[in-house]
Amino acid sequence: MPTLYEQYKAQMSKLADLSGAMATLHWDQEVNMPKNGAASRGKQIATLSAITHEQFTNEKIGNLLNRMERMTSLDNAQKKNIAITRKQYDKATRFDEAFVIKRSQAISHAFASWIAARQADDYGIYKDALQEIIDIKKEEAKIIGYKDHPYDALLDEYEPGLTTARVTEIFDHVKSELKPLLKKIRKSKKISTKILKGHFDKDIQWQYGLNILKQIGYDFESGRQDISEHPFSTSLGPGDIRVTTRIDESDFCNMLFSTIHEGGHALYEQGLPASEYGLATGSYISLSIHESQSRLWENHVGRSKEFWSYNYPSLQQHFPRSFKKKSLKKFYKAINAISPGYIRTEADELHYHFHVIIRFEIEQMIMKGEVSAKELKELWNEKYKEYLGIKVKSDKLGVLQDVHWAHGGIGYFPTYSLGSFYAAQFYQQAVKDKPKIESKIEKGDHSTLLKWLRKNIHNHGRRYEAEELCERITGEQLNVEHFLRYARKKYGKIYGF
Amino acid sequence: MPTLYEQYKAQMSKLADLSGAMATLHWDQEVNMPKNGAASRGKQIATLSAITHEQFTNEKIGNLLNRMERMTSLDNAQKKNIAITRKQYDKATRFDEAFVIKRSQAISHAFASWIAARQADDYGIYKDALQEIIDIKKEEAKIIGYKDHPYDALLDEYEPGLTTARVTEIFDHVKSELKPLLKKIRKSKKISTKILKGHFDKDIQWQYGLNILKQIGYDFESGRQDISEHPFSTSLGPGDIRVTTRIDESDFCNMLFSTIHEGGHALYEQGLPASEYGLATGSYISLSIHESQSRLWENHVGRSKEFWSYNYPSLQQHFPRSFKKKSLKKFYKAINAISPGYIRTEADELHYHFHVIIRFEIEQMIMKGEVSAKELKELWNEKYKEYLGIKVKSDKLGVLQDVHWAHGGIGYFPTYSLGSFYAAQFYQQAVKDKPKIESKIEKGDHSTLLKWLRKNIHNHGRRYEAEELCERITGEQLNVEHFLRYARKKYGKIYGF
Repeated sequence: MPTLYEQYKAQMSKLADLSGAMATLHWDQEVNMPKNGAASRGKQIATLSAITHEQFTNEKIGNLLNRMERMTSLDNAQKKNIAITRKQYDKATRFDEAFVIKRSQAISHAFASWIAARQADDYGIYKDALQEIIDIKKEEAKIIGYKDHPYDALLDEYEPGLTTARVTEIFDHVKSELKPLLKKIRKSKKISTKILKGHFDKDIQWQYGLNILKQIGYDFESGRQDISEHPFSTSLGPGDIRVTTRIDESDFCNMLFSTIHEGGHALYEQGLPASEYGLATGSYISLSIHESQSRLWENHVGRSKEFWSYNYPSLQQHFPRSFKKKSLKKFYKAINAISPGYIRTEADELHYHFHVIIRFEIEQMIMKGEVSAKELKELWNEKYKEYLGIKVKSDKLGVLQDVHWAHGGIGYFPTYSLGSFYAAQFYQQAVKDKPKIESKIEKGDHSTLLKWLRKNIHNHGRRYEAEELCERITGEQLNVEHFLRYARKKYGKIYGF
Repeated sequence: MPTLYEQYKAQMSKLADLSGAMATLHWDQEVNMPKNGAASRGKQIATLSAITHEQFTNEKIGNLLNRMERMTSLDNAQKKNIAITRKQYDKATRFDEAFVIKRSQAISHAFASWIAARQADDYGIYKDALQEIIDIKKEEAKIIGYKDHPYDALLDEYEPGLTTARVTEIFDHVKSELKPLLKKIRKSKKISTKILKGHFDKDIQWQYGLNILKQIGYDFESGRQDISEHPFSTSLGPGDIRVTTRIDESDFCNMLFSTIHEGGHALYEQGLPASEYGLATGSYISLSIHESQSRLWENHVGRSKEFWSYNYPSLQQHFPRSFKKKSLKKFYKAINAISPGYIRTEADELHYHFHVIIRFEIEQMIMKGEVSAKELKELWNEKYKEYLGIKVKSDKLGVLQDVHWAHGGIGYFPTYSLGSFYAAQFYQQAVKDKPKIESKIEKGDHSTLLKWLRKNIHNHGRRYEAEELCERITGEQLNVEHFLRYARKKYGKIYGF
C-alpha cells in the first residue's frame, strides 16, 4: 500500500503528464502543424485543459492534502511541496467550470482578433475582444482575492508573492537611475550597428546557432532546436526540453540572441531534478527566476567581451563577407549599442525596462478600471513618447506587438525586468564564488558557470521562493543596484564616460 | 438545452480530442523526440490512455446510450453511430482498470524486449515477454467472449464482424489459386531488378516523393510529410493527416512505394467528413478498408503502366544516371518483378499474401494454445520453408521482423491481405463506373479516381461495415476472384504467358 505522500506524488505526476502532453500539442502547433489543423488542435488543448482542471480540483486531491497536513513525519521539502499544492488547489477550486470555459473562449476569441488586427495593422479590430479579456481578468482577481490592489492577484499567478507595491518600489528606483545613464549615452558618440546588417545565409546561421547551444551546455539528447515564428523554449517532460529560434537572413542578431536566450531557459529546465517530477521541488520557481536564467546567458554571457573573444574568429569564418575585415571591438560595441525603439523584444539591455514599465503602468490602470480597451492605444502611444521619446507610427509596432494580453496574460510583463535584475545579481555572485568563470568563458568553456547555476539554482527546483533563493545565494533579497552598477560600468566603458 | 444526441456527440468529440492528442504524442515520438524523452513520453501516453478509458466507460455514457436507445426520432446514421458506440462501450466496460494497466505494462515490456532482441538478432531475448502478451491476449479473448474460436474475439477488434472461418475460406481459395500462378512465373524468364539499384540522392528522392503526393491529391494544407524509421500515416485531427516515409539512398523503391502507400491511407482520412468528428460516421470502417485505400494507390495506380507512362520522364530527369538510358518497359517490369523474400513489407504483390497467411495460421495456433512463444521461431521458419521455399537465416529477417505482436496486435495481419483484395474489387468497379480513370492517370490526373473514392467510400465514414459497403459499391461481398483475375492478367502479360 503506497503511503499518502506516494499517492500524492502519483497524482501530481499524472497531472504533469497532462501538462507535458499539452506542451507537446503547443510545440507542434508552433513548429509543425499544417494550416487546417488549427481548429481541432485548439479543441484538443481545450479538452486537455478542462480534464486537467477536473482532475486537479477533484476532492481526491483535497482529501489527500487534508490528511497529509495532519502528518508529522514529513521533511521540509515534502512540506513545501504540499503547501504549494494546497495554495494552487485552493485557488483552482475557486473557479467553477463555467468560468474556466468562459475564460478559455474569451482567450480563443481575443487571440484570433489579435492575429487579424495585426494583419490589418488596426487595433480597432482587437479592442472589443481585449475588453472581454480585461473584464474576465477583473472577475478573476475578485475570485482569487487580494489585499491592496486587484493587480496583486494576477502578479501572484506568475510570480508567487509578488505585489504591485514591491514592483513599484523596484521600477521607480530603476527609472530614476536609468534616465541619467541614458542621457549620458545619448550625449556620447553614437555607435554604428551597420556591421550587423547584410546577408547571412540561413543554413550557416542554423549551424552556427546549434554550435552555440552545444557550447553553452545544452543537451541535444534531451532536447532539440527547431524554427518557429516566435522563439520559445518548452518542457515536454524531463529529458525533452526543446527550444526554437527564427532566422532572418538580413539580421544575424535575431537568431543569435534568441538562441542564447531560449538556451538559457532550457538549461534551467534540463537542470531540474527529474526525480521530483510533477512536484514543486521538480519545477521552476517563478517566471522571473526563469527569465533570470535566459537573461544571464543572453546578456551577461552572450553580450560579453569574454564570450566573443572566443567566438568571434569562428563567426568571421562563418560569415567572412560581413566580419572578416571588422575588428572584435567594433563587433562587440555594435551588439551592445543603445538606442530606443518600438519593439520590446528587440530592445537593448537598458531601454528594455522602459518597455516593461509602460506595460506595468498600463496593466495597473486596466485592473483599477482607470482605462478601457478603447483608450489603450492612445495611452500606449503617449507613454512611448514620454519614456522612449518616440512617436509610434503603427499599431503593429505599438499596442499590438505583444500576444500576452490576448492570451489573458495580464501581470506577466514585470517578471521580464525582474528576471534581468536577478540575472545581474546572480551572475555577480557566481563570479565572486568562482573567479575563473570569465577566463573559462574566454576559452569557450561554460562548465564552471553552468555547474554553479545547477548547484545554486537549478537543482533545487522550487524548494525556495524567488527572493528567498536570492537571499540564500547572494545574502540579500533582490537588489537592483547590482544590475544598475553592471549597466553603468559596462556602458560607461563602451560609450567612454 | 442540448438534445441527448447532441450531448452524446459532445462526449464523443471530447474522446476524439484525447485520441488526437495521443496521435500527436505518437507522431512526435516517431519523428522528433530526443532520446531522453522516451520515458516521460511513455508515461504521458499511458496516462492519456487511462483517462480515455475512464471517460469512455463512465456511466454518463452508459446512461446516454440507454436513453437514446429508447428514442424513436433518430435517423439511420444516428442509430448506426449509437449502435457502434454501444458495442464499443459494452466491450470497454468489461475490462477493469487492473487488466488495462497489466496489458499496457506487458506491452511496454514486450516492445522494449523486441527492440533489444532485434538489436542482438536473438529471438531468445524476446520470447518470455511475448509469452506474457500471448497469455494476456488469451485472457482478453475470454473477457470479450466468442462463439467458435478465441481468435474471433481479436479479429473483431480490427475488422468488426470478421471471423476465423471467413478468413480461412478466403485464404484457402487464394492459396490454391496463387500457387499455380507463382509456379508459372517461376518457370518464366526472370525479370532483372538491377535497374532499381544504384545511388539515389536523399534530397532529390524527398522532393520526388512530395511531387507524387501532390499529384495523387494529398492536401498539404491538411497534412505534412516527414521522415521516420518505419513509414506510417496518422490522423492528428480533421485537417491534420500526416504521413511519413523513409529514404534509403541505395533503394529508390523503398521511399517511392511507401510514400504512395501512406498517401493512400491519408487520402482516405482526408476524405472523412469532419462534421461527424468523433462518431462512427466520421471514422474509417475497418483496417481492411483502410488498407484497401493504401493498396489501391500503391499497386493499382503506383505500379501501373498508366502511372509510369506519365511519371517516367520526370523520374529520368530526377535520376538521369539510373534511368536516362533505360526504357519505360524495363522499369515497369522491374518494379513488378515477382520473387520470394524474407520480409513482408518488402514483398511483391503475390508473395505478400503468403507472408500474411503464415502469420494468420500461427496466430490461430497461439490462441488455441497449440504453440507457445518458445516454439514460435521454429514454427515460423518451417512455414517460410513450406510456403515461400526459403530458409530463414536470421531472427531479424524472420520471427522478429514485425512489431505487431509486441504491441499486442494479434489479429491484425489478415486485414493486410483483405485490404489488397478489396482494393482490386474497388478499383475494377471504379474503372467500370468511370472508364476515363486510366486515361486520366496516364495524363497525371488522378481527380476522377479520387472523386470516385470520395463519393463511394471516404465520404460515408463508417456508415456501413466493410462487406456491406463492398456490396453497395460492387453488387457483391468481398470476392477474391477480382484480385486473382487482376493478378493473372497483369503478371501473365509481364511474364509473357
